[in-house]
Amino acid sequence: MTAHFITLDGIDGAGKTTQLAVIREWFAAQERPVLFTREPGGTPLGEALRRLLLNPKTQAGLRAETLLMFAARAQHIESVILPALEDGISVVSDRFTDATFAYQGGGRGLPEADIAQLEQWVQGNLRPSLTILLDVPLEVSLARIERSRNKDRFEQEEADFFTRVRQSYLERAAAAPERYTVINSNRGKTVVRRDIEAALEKLFA
Amino acid sequence: MTAHFITLDGIDGAGKTTQLAVIREWFAAQERPVLFTREPGGTPLGEALRRLLLNPKTQAGLRAETLLMFAARAQHIESVILPALEDGISVVSDRFTDATFAYQGGGRGLPEADIAQLEQWVQGNLRPSLTILLDVPLEVSLARIERSRNKDRFEQEEADFFTRVRQSYLERAAAAPERYTVINSNRGKTVVRRDIEAALEKLFA
Repeated sequence: MTAHFITLDGIDGAGKTTQLAVIREWFAAQERPVLFTREPGGTPLGEALRRLLLNPKTQAGLRAETLLMFAARAQHIESVILPALEDGISVVSDRFTDATFAYQGGGRGLPEADIAQLEQWVQGNLRPSLTILLDVPLEVSLARIERSRNKDRFEQEEADFFTRVRQSYLERAAAAPERYTVINSNRGKTVVRRDIEAALEKLFA
Repeated sequence: MTAHFITLDGIDGAGKTTQLAVIREWFAAQERPVLFTREPGGTPLGEALRRLLLNPKTQAGLRAETLLMFAARAQHIESVILPALEDGISVVSDRFTDATFAYQGGGRGLPEADIAQLEQWVQGNLRPSLTILLDVPLEVSLARIERSRNKDRFEQEEADFFTRVRQSYLERAAAAPERYTVINSNRGKTVVRRDIEAALEKLFA
């Protein structure tokens, strides 16, 4: 049985949690072996780094932060992703390198070429065979983040940041349409689910 | 007043702690402003990463470990080393990138070219103006580590590892003699001190 490496990505508030459940149900219905994981995290080292990155006491500059993301990723690939794929188990990762290009690159301004160097260093030829990119208009994303944070309103600076993040995701998807499926998740549940299922069916066909 | 970036490096048991005190006294006697720091560590992030690297629960593979070293280094450079140098304060770091080449490279087998790529990514043109490399014969190093660890004897595997680490340090020093001063620290205190002082005097002359 073919195993595939699939990533789910997109701006905060794009609905990843809901659509992960959809993907989970699809694999269960198909009885295909699959492993769900996430970044940063997915390994004890990755989870420790995730906590470290959220702790203001151990604040990391942009280049250090990006190296930490790739350190977690290297461990994730070596100890989780590759072993599963080699055992014929598909892997679905909640975020992967596209998030680094979008957040540290588009959002915070690290040159794309610098990120691509680390991607090559860490991943060699490993790329997802499918990246489902969930996309929503900025207002929807911001409204959902506001609700989850109990914040009244967004600073303009944050809105600009997320605009760049979203832009970066969309540009990467446009540059490699054979790998990305962009799904507008600002629509009814049934239609979004159908699009996700269609992408998975095409991949495994 | 000229500020210099100086690193002290060498295999475990080469006597770095003792010679750091010598360097400290030299700067005090000269009344030159200086900052002492260490790797991995030197920043809150670096110290947290140091603990993480020592914790068996969050064990990192070779590539992840190397990325963590460089993440700590990026933070160290940005928030400690460069600001001090820009203020005219010399910096002495207990270990720096040479240790990555020696331990992760020579010792554990990561290709030197891979480490050089990360060095360039993180450091740009920043290199120490002087690296004091303390060197002792392997037997001396092993005996000192044994004592500090309360271990009876070394496995052959460990002895081979430290042989490669030492070899790697010496090769790097031989390849760039204008930057390195190799000091045989398996000699009397007075003569080692004189060599260290001579290296510092030459640098600041």
